[in-house]
Amino acid sequence: MPQRIDFTEETSDDVVQASFARTPDPRLRHVLQRLVHHLHAFARDVELTQDEWERGIAFLTETGQMCDDDRQEFILLSDVLGLSMLVDAITNRSLSANDEVTASTVLGPFHVVDSPPRGNGDTISLVDGGEPCLVTGRVLGSDGTPLPGALVDVWQADERGFYDVQTPERTPRGNLRGLFTTDDAGRFHFRTIVPAAYPIPHDGPVGRLLQLTERHPYRPAHIHFIAGAPGHHPLTTHIFVAGSDYLDSDAVFGVKDSLIKEFPVVQADPPAEGADLPLPFRHCHVDIRLDVAR
Amino acid sequence: MPQRIDFTEETSDDVVQASFARTPDPRLRHVLQRLVHHLHAFARDVELTQDEWERGIAFLTETGQMCDDDRQEFILLSDVLGLSMLVDAITNRSLSANDEVTASTVLGPFHVVDSPPRGNGDTISLVDGGEPCLVTGRVLGSDGTPLPGALVDVWQADERGFYDVQTPERTPRGNLRGLFTTDDAGRFHFRTIVPAAYPIPHDGPVGRLLQLTERHPYRPAHIHFIAGAPGHHPLTTHIFVAGSDYLDSDAVFGVKDSLIKEFPVVQADPPAEGADLPLPFRHCHVDIRLDVAR
Repeated sequence: MPQRIDFTEETSDDVVQASFARTPDPRLRHVLQRLVHHLHAFARDVELTQDEWERGIAFLTETGQMCDDDRQEFILLSDVLGLSMLVDAITNRSLSANDEVTASTVLGPFHVVDSPPRGNGDTISLVDGGEPCLVTGRVLGSDGTPLPGALVDVWQADERGFYDVQTPERTPRGNLRGLFTTDDAGRFHFRTIVPAAYPIPHDGPVGRLLQLTERHPYRPAHIHFIAGAPGHHPLTTHIFVAGSDYLDSDAVFGVKDSLIKEFPVVQADPPAEGADLPLPFRHCHVDIRLDVAR
Repeated sequence: MPQRIDFTEETSDDVVQASFARTPDPRLRHVLQRLVHHLHAFARDVELTQDEWERGIAFLTETGQMCDDDRQEFILLSDVLGLSMLVDAITNRSLSANDEVTASTVLGPFHVVDSPPRGNGDTISLVDGGEPCLVTGRVLGSDGTPLPGALVDVWQADERGFYDVQTPERTPRGNLRGLFTTDDAGRFHFRTIVPAAYPIPHDGPVGRLLQLTERHPYRPAHIHFIAGAPGHHPLTTHIFVAGSDYLDSDAVFGVKDSLIKEFPVVQADPPAEGADLPLPFRHCHVDIRLDVAR
């Protein structure tokens, strides 16, 4: 048995790290030891008081108890602390170092329904309302080669800022969701409505944290995409609507300049994919460039 | 509105700290900004993967959902990560720098029943069983001056390692708890039984963490004390039984050398406070030295 050394501010990091030294899984051991290191550094840095520690325990407890099948308050907490985006950045290091491929961003908490497979040209908007919009796009390799047969999973909020699962009384499951396959030229297109900006759920402890810190809970208007093709690294990202509110203050830090796209109004001379659509409509074109899988 | 800068591994710390810049309470602002700094440093340091992040979210969620009125799993987590002891060390910096006063240690999760006021010489052991023990002690100022009228709050586990609230079927509330007042010479004494070592509750996520890391859940045998006297800093501490198992590997890091006391067997010549006790019994003497309140 090792000689015990007294627990002090100076020794705490070493003493607790040593307690994890027999962890069989080397990765778990490393992650826990570094967690201890940074957690203790935080407490020493701010000279955390007993009262603040108690309030922290109560906040974490309430956050856990807010979670159920439809609500994940710890993911919201991770989102508003920027941890989700940081993990995304670490995961996609190769992408962020490569201007030739499309940038990633967070998955978000609403990818909870399998997107219904749809054909190019279909609409994903199954109920009335909203401003008509045509989305055209291509899936490409990083060298610009079109990728036929690529899968494009799409989901978005409606014109009031709600996903299908949030308004089951007026929107069927699968509304504003679709799974498309690119054609021989790597192209896809679908009809939809322009999404609205919306607040993340803010009636729990994370909402209270935002309120106490004078942060708003809103996300700018966006459409989610997951694109995948054989031999390529799958990409989770958004396209943000240029001119939307909150582009400069997304509550979850998801915006990147390269992901903001114009949605111009088409008054005449529609693109071929929108030749049969009543004018006017909004139009967004997005090329998604995927990195080669490593 | 501030100019947005893209969220990257390099900018994440600054971007998220800036989001808290309008927090009205300066202490909350500081704690949150430093939390972000250390949290992001941890994620970058270990290159936290998406899968590990998901497992972390699930662990925290389960920890919150394990909590109820009788069980505080987040405090257990803080305890086994050494955070509780570190906050104690920070809170009691003036004590740890002063060899003349008794060292502090963690409160623990079992101070949930008000200790019944008792007279010096009373027993706190209300049921049969266990090895008889006499505890004598004094409450002193840091210069050794006896402190009359000081309050000494005592609680402990029984000979099987359980607190009263854990075994309501065989021990009344208040068993092995007592609130004593020192006499004119600053003295207190009471009868009890020798406590046993015991495991912290380990049937939840914290227990699973200990198992995965090959750490045991045990605490060495100890008696809890909170001592307070007018004009003095109140002290929360334990006295550990010399020779107990786990003194070198307390699951919550609470042991300090200066808090380990002998509990010798008295076969003859009992101290005055134990003159009427049947021989043999164990005896522990503890002087608690309090710091002057600042």
